[in-house]
Amino acid sequence: MLLVKSRVEILSTTPDALKLIELAGRTCYKSEDKITEGSAKKFVQMIIKRRHFSVLEHASMTARFVVDRGVTHEQVRHRLCAYSQESTRYCNYGGSDVCFIIPPWVDLEEGEYATNIGVAKSLSDRIWMTSMLMAETHYQALLAEGWKPQQARSVLPNSLKTEIVHTANFREWMHIFNLRCAPAAHPQIREVMLTLEDEMAERYPCIFGDE
Amino acid sequence: MLLVKSRVEILSTTPDALKLIELAGRTCYKSEDKITEGSAKKFVQMIIKRRHFSVLEHASMTARFVVDRGVTHEQVRHRLCAYSQESTRYCNYGGSDVCFIIPPWVDLEEGEYATNIGVAKSLSDRIWMTSMLMAETHYQALLAEGWKPQQARSVLPNSLKTEIVHTANFREWMHIFNLRCAPAAHPQIREVMLTLEDEMAERYPCIFGDE
Amino acid sequence: MLLVKSRVEILSTTPDALKLIELAGRTCYKSEDKITEGSAKKFVQMIIKRRHFSVLEHASMTARFVVDRGVTHEQVRHRLCAYSQESTRYCNYGGSDVCFIIPPWVDLEEGEYATNIGVAKSLSDRIWMTSMLMAETHYQALLAEGWKPQQARSVLPNSLKTEIVHTANFREWMHIFNLRCAPAAHPQIREVMLTLEDEMAERYPCIFGDE
Amino acid sequence: MLLVKSRVEILSTTPDALKLIELAGRTCYKSEDKITEGSAKKFVQMIIKRRHFSVLEHASMTARFVVDRGVTHEQVRHRLCAYSQESTRYCNYGGSDVCFIIPPWVDLEEGEYATNIGVAKSLSDRIWMTSMLMAETHYQALLAEGWKPQQARSVLPNSLKTEIVHTANFREWMHIFNLRCAPAAHPQIREVMLTLEDEMAERYPCIFGDE
Repeated sequence: MLLVKSRVEILSTTPDALKLIELAGRTCYKSEDKITEGSAKKFVQMIIKRRHFSVLEHASMTARFVVDRGVTHEQVRHRLCAYSQESTRYCNYGGSDVCFIIPPWVDLEEGEYATNIGVAKSLSDRIWMTSMLMAETHYQALLAEGWKPQQARSVLPNSLKTEIVHTANFREWMHIFNLRCAPAAHPQIREVMLTLEDEMAERYPCIFGDE
Repeated sequence: MLLVKSRVEILSTTPDALKLIELAGRTCYKSEDKITEGSAKKFVQMIIKRRHFSVLEHASMTARFVVDRGVTHEQVRHRLCAYSQESTRYCNYGGSDVCFIIPPWVDLEEGEYATNIGVAKSLSDRIWMTSMLMAETHYQALLAEGWKPQQARSVLPNSLKTEIVHTANFREWMHIFNLRCAPAAHPQIREVMLTLEDEMAERYPCIFGDE
Repeated sequence: MLLVKSRVEILSTTPDALKLIELAGRTCYKSEDKITEGSAKKFVQMIIKRRHFSVLEHASMTARFVVDRGVTHEQVRHRLCAYSQESTRYCNYGGSDVCFIIPPWVDLEEGEYATNIGVAKSLSDRIWMTSMLMAETHYQALLAEGWKPQQARSVLPNSLKTEIVHTANFREWMHIFNLRCAPAAHPQIREVMLTLEDEMAERYPCIFGDE
Repeated sequence: MLLVKSRVEILSTTPDALKLIELAGRTCYKSEDKITEGSAKKFVQMIIKRRHFSVLEHASMTARFVVDRGVTHEQVRHRLCAYSQESTRYCNYGGSDVCFIIPPWVDLEEGEYATNIGVAKSLSDRIWMTSMLMAETHYQALLAEGWKPQQARSVLPNSLKTEIVHTANFREWMHIFNLRCAPAAHPQIREVMLTLEDEMAERYPCIFGDE
């Protein structure tokens, strides 16, 4: 059993995204002659102010999430995206540790079960950790009894670690951040989406930040 | 703990679907004058033969699935559909039995844990049943410790029963059946999709059947 | 040459749409036991107030528009819809009148060219009518010279009449009405969308009306 | 009046597209350790052979088309794409030449009307050219009478030049090329799509070419 925290990283973004958005947007009005070295930012700000969001769809970003399957079951409900997810059918966790995500409200350290025995202070944290251990044990036992990974996965919990590569265009990411960074969102999807939004706000302050 | 088998039922279909498809299709060619009492079936057969599938998108079907969350995590990857799913955030299984889906390869009977104690013959079936019982116990214990349902769900397994209402148009259902009724599909999604395809083949043999 | 006005009619809607939406929505919260004879309307009003719009996607409506190709070029930009449109490739307007849509700001009567000769009062209306007549003449001449309909359509104007069958779910129709009934919309798409919205508001006042 | 030929150019593609696709695809199988300097091409070839096309959705390409509005009316029917198109509502062709696309079966030269007077050899080419001239004349006359561009566009024909920036992921481009480069496609959309497919086949032979 291996415990890790959820994380997210950006794998790829459209090169010169602001300039591409400006060029696309100016095609609508045939105002390409107004493009100058520094015009893209102002144009994008104007586009957003006017809620002409469709122009933002020409730029996209790909991120890789390491989260639990409770999170991805919500995440893949966003339909205007591309996903490639670690498969519980084709991956076999039989020969190694099964990996689980530590929820943000659980006070444990990344690492193996043994290193966390003394760490868990609250009863609830110990219950969660025990539950992970039991799930791993049952999963391995079912494989030993001849079940295939796609059958034995039945006993694996929502906290199972999964990896997902997620591509969407900028407009869709704005929409996802709106929903998933809100206080009403599930705390685990919110955790990674806030991180990702911050990263995007730093890269594109006039779209994802306050600029 | 309550064990049930997965099932699916059709809630709604477009009224006079074949006639609507014919009317839509004939709009393309302005051949509405060829519509007769019995012309719809032949027209739809011709449309399918020519692979002019987009016309089938005007008719839709809504089904309600009772399956496990392993199945729905695959199911909701189909993007051109509408879903409403039992929420593990807003439903609280604390005051009652937690309900699990019996996988088709597990030889147990619908009902409570107690009634299945003597039923489970193989070791693997007993492991699976024990695992469900432990997950329920941990879930209830975490609620008792003050976790909210959206936190305690962390320990609930893929076999957790869920309900999902799933709407798609006929073209998309054809595509879903193609993928999910194939031998390479996961046995649990295949089980319900085959049932649903049979039901649709009976209702619309010229689209979903061999006619 | 035949002049007609644009129009729209509803071909099909999901039967018992409110009840289906209620059943789908209550699946999320497992509150199906609260369904009574009159509960659907209140439930849908609550859903809309909370902006839980996805539940509205289970119901859909199909309409048939008779509009010009300027309108449909905007209309088909809505992507979460199904369309079947009169084809300028496969329809041959060579043996009969070519049909055009009278824009709402043009003061002409439905009917043939001859009947409108004395009707057109303003110079601009006469220019528009002449332009349609010339386009028809050139189209027919090109067919006579051996061009196929899909080639000769090159000279046909935006005002060419077309028919389109358009299916979308209720959430998408709400979005379409929001955009296309607004004062900033093109007057011709606004004309038919206002008509359609009124019709839907009468049928489903708690979704498309003020109830 | 200005006559031009249709054309298309690639504005942007995902950087290191093959490597991104490989990384996404290997996430499904947790085989990232097999990535080497030259492994991407083989992996993508394997993915395509197995028809695991969804992985190709992480890479995208943006192109700019200069075509006529007959072409774009077909083009925008592809729904899993982003579009920004020259607006006939917000662009005013009143103060300058109206621009038309020379169909591939019309034997005229790029340039103004005057330079083509002696060029048009066939009667049909002369009819087409006259028709464009008349449309321009009527459009300008309607503007002079006080119509707005969004009204006067009524008389502009399918051959009107338009520009459109079109973004789609690689899987969708494969699908578009399949449909629009086929012999059954309209000759004008086929012309530009064949050009674009050739360009993509040169850049990514293992996806869009024969490699």
